[in-house]
Amino acid sequence: MRVLMTGAGGIIGREARHRLAGRYPLMRLLDLADIEPANADEECLKVDICNLEALEAAMQGIDCVVHLAGVSVEPESNAWEQVLPANIVGTYNVFEAARRAGVKRVVFASSHHAIGYYRRSEVLTGAIAPRPDSYYGVSKVTGEALGRLYADKFGLSVVSLRIGAYRPKPADIRHLSVWISPRDMVELLRCSIEAPLLHYVVAYGMSANSRLIWDNREAGVLGYRPVDDAEDYAEEVLANGAPELEGAKPFHGGWYCAWGLGDHGLFID
Amino acid sequence: MRVLMTGAGGIIGREARHRLAGRYPLMRLLDLADIEPANADEECLKVDICNLEALEAAMQGIDCVVHLAGVSVEPESNAWEQVLPANIVGTYNVFEAARRAGVKRVVFASSHHAIGYYRRSEVLTGAIAPRPDSYYGVSKVTGEALGRLYADKFGLSVVSLRIGAYRPKPADIRHLSVWISPRDMVELLRCSIEAPLLHYVVAYGMSANSRLIWDNREAGVLGYRPVDDAEDYAEEVLANGAPELEGAKPFHGGWYCAWGLGDHGLFID
Amino acid sequence: MRVLMTGAGGIIGREARHRLAGRYPLMRLLDLADIEPANADEECLKVDICNLEALEAAMQGIDCVVHLAGVSVEPESNAWEQVLPANIVGTYNVFEAARRAGVKRVVFASSHHAIGYYRRSEVLTGAIAPRPDSYYGVSKVTGEALGRLYADKFGLSVVSLRIGAYRPKPADIRHLSVWISPRDMVELLRCSIEAPLLHYVVAYGMSANSRLIWDNREAGVLGYRPVDDAEDYAEEVLANGAPELEGAKPFHGGWYCAWGLGDHGLFID
Amino acid sequence: MRVLMTGAGGIIGREARHRLAGRYPLMRLLDLADIEPANADEECLKVDICNLEALEAAMQGIDCVVHLAGVSVEPESNAWEQVLPANIVGTYNVFEAARRAGVKRVVFASSHHAIGYYRRSEVLTGAIAPRPDSYYGVSKVTGEALGRLYADKFGLSVVSLRIGAYRPKPADIRHLSVWISPRDMVELLRCSIEAPLLHYVVAYGMSANSRLIWDNREAGVLGYRPVDDAEDYAEEVLANGAPELEGAKPFHGGWYCAWGLGDHGLFID
Amino acid sequence: MRVLMTGAGGIIGREARHRLAGRYPLMRLLDLADIEPANADEECLKVDICNLEALEAAMQGIDCVVHLAGVSVEPESNAWEQVLPANIVGTYNVFEAARRAGVKRVVFASSHHAIGYYRRSEVLTGAIAPRPDSYYGVSKVTGEALGRLYADKFGLSVVSLRIGAYRPKPADIRHLSVWISPRDMVELLRCSIEAPLLHYVVAYGMSANSRLIWDNREAGVLGYRPVDDAEDYAEEVLANGAPELEGAKPFHGGWYCAWGLGDHGLFID
Amino acid sequence: MRVLMTGAGGIIGREARHRLAGRYPLMRLLDLADIEPANADEECLKVDICNLEALEAAMQGIDCVVHLAGVSVEPESNAWEQVLPANIVGTYNVFEAARRAGVKRVVFASSHHAIGYYRRSEVLTGAIAPRPDSYYGVSKVTGEALGRLYADKFGLSVVSLRIGAYRPKPADIRHLSVWISPRDMVELLRCSIEAPLLHYVVAYGMSANSRLIWDNREAGVLGYRPVDDAEDYAEEVLANGAPELEGAKPFHGGWYCAWGLGDHGLFID
Repeated sequence: MRVLMTGAGGIIGREARHRLAGRYPLMRLLDLADIEPANADEECLKVDICNLEALEAAMQGIDCVVHLAGVSVEPESNAWEQVLPANIVGTYNVFEAARRAGVKRVVFASSHHAIGYYRRSEVLTGAIAPRPDSYYGVSKVTGEALGRLYADKFGLSVVSLRIGAYRPKPADIRHLSVWISPRDMVELLRCSIEAPLLHYVVAYGMSANSRLIWDNREAGVLGYRPVDDAEDYAEEVLANGAPELEGAKPFHGGWYCAWGLGDHGLFID
Repeated sequence: MRVLMTGAGGIIGREARHRLAGRYPLMRLLDLADIEPANADEECLKVDICNLEALEAAMQGIDCVVHLAGVSVEPESNAWEQVLPANIVGTYNVFEAARRAGVKRVVFASSHHAIGYYRRSEVLTGAIAPRPDSYYGVSKVTGEALGRLYADKFGLSVVSLRIGAYRPKPADIRHLSVWISPRDMVELLRCSIEAPLLHYVVAYGMSANSRLIWDNREAGVLGYRPVDDAEDYAEEVLANGAPELEGAKPFHGGWYCAWGLGDHGLFID
Repeated sequence: MRVLMTGAGGIIGREARHRLAGRYPLMRLLDLADIEPANADEECLKVDICNLEALEAAMQGIDCVVHLAGVSVEPESNAWEQVLPANIVGTYNVFEAARRAGVKRVVFASSHHAIGYYRRSEVLTGAIAPRPDSYYGVSKVTGEALGRLYADKFGLSVVSLRIGAYRPKPADIRHLSVWISPRDMVELLRCSIEAPLLHYVVAYGMSANSRLIWDNREAGVLGYRPVDDAEDYAEEVLANGAPELEGAKPFHGGWYCAWGLGDHGLFID
Repeated sequence: MRVLMTGAGGIIGREARHRLAGRYPLMRLLDLADIEPANADEECLKVDICNLEALEAAMQGIDCVVHLAGVSVEPESNAWEQVLPANIVGTYNVFEAARRAGVKRVVFASSHHAIGYYRRSEVLTGAIAPRPDSYYGVSKVTGEALGRLYADKFGLSVVSLRIGAYRPKPADIRHLSVWISPRDMVELLRCSIEAPLLHYVVAYGMSANSRLIWDNREAGVLGYRPVDDAEDYAEEVLANGAPELEGAKPFHGGWYCAWGLGDHGLFID
Repeated sequence: MRVLMTGAGGIIGREARHRLAGRYPLMRLLDLADIEPANADEECLKVDICNLEALEAAMQGIDCVVHLAGVSVEPESNAWEQVLPANIVGTYNVFEAARRAGVKRVVFASSHHAIGYYRRSEVLTGAIAPRPDSYYGVSKVTGEALGRLYADKFGLSVVSLRIGAYRPKPADIRHLSVWISPRDMVELLRCSIEAPLLHYVVAYGMSANSRLIWDNREAGVLGYRPVDDAEDYAEEVLANGAPELEGAKPFHGGWYCAWGLGDHGLFID
Repeated sequence: MRVLMTGAGGIIGREARHRLAGRYPLMRLLDLADIEPANADEECLKVDICNLEALEAAMQGIDCVVHLAGVSVEPESNAWEQVLPANIVGTYNVFEAARRAGVKRVVFASSHHAIGYYRRSEVLTGAIAPRPDSYYGVSKVTGEALGRLYADKFGLSVVSLRIGAYRPKPADIRHLSVWISPRDMVELLRCSIEAPLLHYVVAYGMSANSRLIWDNREAGVLGYRPVDDAEDYAEEVLANGAPELEGAKPFHGGWYCAWGLGDHGLFID
């Protein structure tokens, strides 16, 4: 299994690189910035995912692409102008380059912000229709749609991971439901890389949180067994956690949902 | 009710302009090409929807935008390169210009190609997750996601119409299920423009076809009452209709689904 | 079929009495106020439904009770104090008297205010859980629960009618969805009285409105075929109809939902 | 967090008082009978929940009300006459007093008898429509409807707990599915008091029973992690447990369902 | 389209033969008994469907088989011994002969008795699991399972018709829901023969009855538009119709359900 | 509890006999071949299940029948000819003999091949409609239908176990989802024999596999708590497991699905 990872210099990429070191005969690490190989089975390439030809060249001989690259910039005023090239065009390039290079599997780092405007009173499966909470969320909806298309039309095997709140430990109330620990995150990537026979799967990137608001059943086929539970931090978070914005409280997406709402008052739907 | 229509020179735009003539105090018609006003309440503007500032200027004083502009180019080899500016960036521009100009309602001409890879043995509602059959379909998924976001975050009222097969009469077997006649199409636009109090609605653009494969119940709130039924052409179509490609037969999207499939044989999902 | 009607002097009661005149061998009419029999098969009784013994006496020899009596008083400040005796205790008395007197069928005039706080973007069936919009709505939830119990535990046959907006013609936007015309209302009562073999049925009291937000399928067993459609009044209502309160617009229950909301701002659920 | 508990002298109340001792700065204990404070942070009040003004006075300064008071009297002949004041009027008084006093959260001890006439072959979620098995069950349906209303209309945060069979250990076959142990019961109360950001939640009061017939997923947001399992008593119960009445066997509600049924033979629904 | 019909001498077969006369270039009529051709495009064969080789020979050159043959004998004491050869082995033979002979489509006359033990309070789709009410019903479940297998494994196109109560007019209360008129029955056969592109479809054989208890939506793809409604006979049936057996009343299957039940009293499920 | 087991000499039968030794006052073991009793509470009988009278005699005094006998022969050319007597007629005989002899419970060894043609991307419950992958699968659909009938019409208590892949350890990729270990299999039989009050239950025969594709919730009522997980063998299986046939990969049923498919290319449904 020869693996290529985009966004390898990012926070998830670095953790994955570290924890998966030595597991695969080749780990080819791509990033916009310079990064250095740490051991024998790593290769590092400085590639912009907006460059389709460079991507296609980098994917020669690769079995599985883990696509982590992208920007997450809300609520900056030019959010759309940033996600359009980095997340929409970049993700098209990754899938198209993978198809041209004969890659078998693409693991796409989507986000729960693709469904952020659902209310927390509803437990969500991976099968629901999108309801993005931001331009960033729209870019992830587009990425998932591309993944679906490349699976259905071109026969790639694709996993879309709707990652929750990735960090060392949960920091606010919402995280008690949507947190994913670093070790669970990398285990989920490992399962997504290695699970056999997948056509197209949507999985939520979450630890084994007691206060769950996502039903990850359809992701069972990945063989993912998370070991952490945000509930172990509940007392601390409930006592000292960061407060949530008023407009963030009803929604899965949290503070991504809070900006912009002020203008139109009562929600019709 | 002051209405602006993009893509006014296209086949649906021309029909709508004709059938709705005189109904609204203002019908502002936008197109890439020159078009001429036909009567007193029409204004014609040559505007590229890739130009956000021009769109924003054109939307001053408008109550409702009907967004028909876009390209439909599959399976040309550069399909993505065409839908990216015309359908993805253009649709972002339409919603963003509408928000800036204080427009209340946007009616977005989406397409059933956003869900084209579902199998015909399944009757679909408007609530299902996307499953595009083409780059064109991906661009419509993105447009619908933008519509959802502008409704949820910015309070616009948005209708996404998943238009089936628009033409004078059904021409092949699949059309017996997905056809929409010109008069039903324009009636659906009229209902979408005038229905009060909508937050976000997905409706299928179809006539009252007996052989239905779409459940349009959630669109009932529009007050749309189609009058045509493709079944009235069934004998003729079954006897002399165009044959469907083998790879098109299982799927809602028809021939959009047929190209590209050949490479990977048996469908896993 | 010997029929007893409570609330016979009310607006639905008078219409039913008139349209059903002569249909049944006995129509026994109960009301708090004096009413006069109009023809040979009518009997009129002045009975307070808060008086269980009087009710039981009145139900001797009756096959079917149509229970229309009750108050609808929101948002008066003492709404609970009014609905408690008239709607909750009174409806218990009606079911209990019917059981004691050996009545076979009770048709209960419930209200869509039992489910008024659902959002209009959702099409509702009769099987959903209650979500009342008022103390009046709570009293109807209780009445339906009593009906369910008397069917399940004591073997009465019970129909709960969630009546929409009953009046000569629709008067505002919401009525385009929830209106029931006088002739359809009485036809629905007639079907509910005469349908054979029912255990417990919930039906929405609505005409054949195009803009439907209720799915009345499970009521098909009643054999009810409405003939009116609020859409025939749509142009007039959209042009000159009464405006809806801001807090009423999102919800099935309309203005019943609008009072009280102001205190707590953004809705969590 | 200042907590007030009604029915504090009852069997659940005493257990909760004991296990939660010292956890909150104030635990105000209400009961019809005299009870004595045991430690510094307890206050005891003799209050009848039928007295709205006394309740309102008692709720001053309270953050969360745990409403356990009520009667459970089936199948006594005057069951309705008992549940009407104690459970229906009393629960209205609790919610109304809480609203007037500015209480933020009410935890309502509902009962699985609100859904007791469903068949055991069906696994139930919290979202189903009511199907009470008794007048007691009807009173709990009314209490839940009031809780829904006070959440939706007045912005209270409300948890309805459909408590199963609360006792030291399971005593018959049905209990293997619906038992809740004392320590799990109090843990569920603690979670319901402390969980942040709830609008309205229905949770089943059950231990982690292997033979489950209730799906408590939507209650996950409470952070409730039960530790007992009735299966640990299964051998003993199956060998020596109390026999179930014939009419009780099919239904969730057990023997509450068995009385009254005899009269009408075969069940239509 | 060359058509072969088994059971051509039965009551549906004779009606179909008559109404479809002249529609197809060949109508080959099979029966156990002697029957005579009536016009030029008919061929008559005396064949026992228990004879696989004879069936295979008869199917040479055939495009579509309409399989009506079988027995319906409940509650005779030897029902299983009769349905085993005639319905189970016979239907296997029909599908296997069709596969060997290269037939493209098989239309199988199944029965609503395959789902007869569901309760009438539930509206059924074609997608539900079987719940037969008789050995006859079990034989139809087996026939449908064979049809599914031959579609999925061998690529035959198969339609299973769950026929309701076929007769000139409805005769009892249940028929108001499940009746199919002779002309609608034959129209449904015609649609099933001629509909293009079917893989496997289950359709209920019913007229356009107002009092429907079956949802035939998924059969829409057949293009079937029934014209009769049992409701037109409702007054007569309610006044003078045959009474239903007590044990028949709760169930879709009617009197097929009534025998055998007496032994075990209250229904657990 | 006096138990009779058919197919006692088969691989599951031998394991069950061994692990359940001494648990019941009587274990009567039936098989086509000679088997010998091993201890005091066993009786061994040589009986062909095609002999109804012999079966009825053998069932005298029995409380529970565990029906394991049958053949599994796909894709032999005469599969139907083998499953018809052994699985269809034999299973009828078992249920009918049980009814005649007054047996209370029948535990039927069905198979996941009754639903084998569903796609693995779908997680299945026990409530879905059948979709057999073989003649063997059709025979199991028939057996389940007979079990349903004998429960609904004659009041037997019936458990249908859709057994997955029974063997010492998982051997290929699919087994990671559908494996059941010997000790879990016998525990599931024990639970099915001893669970009280069942009417009709469908349970999947699977261990506690992480990679689950079956939702066994409705089987919870059996009190079954599996202890093995195929994931513990995942590394070995993924590295050295037997490869799956191409036509087997998409489907629950595995290689049973692979034969026969080649003829008709693309799957319509």
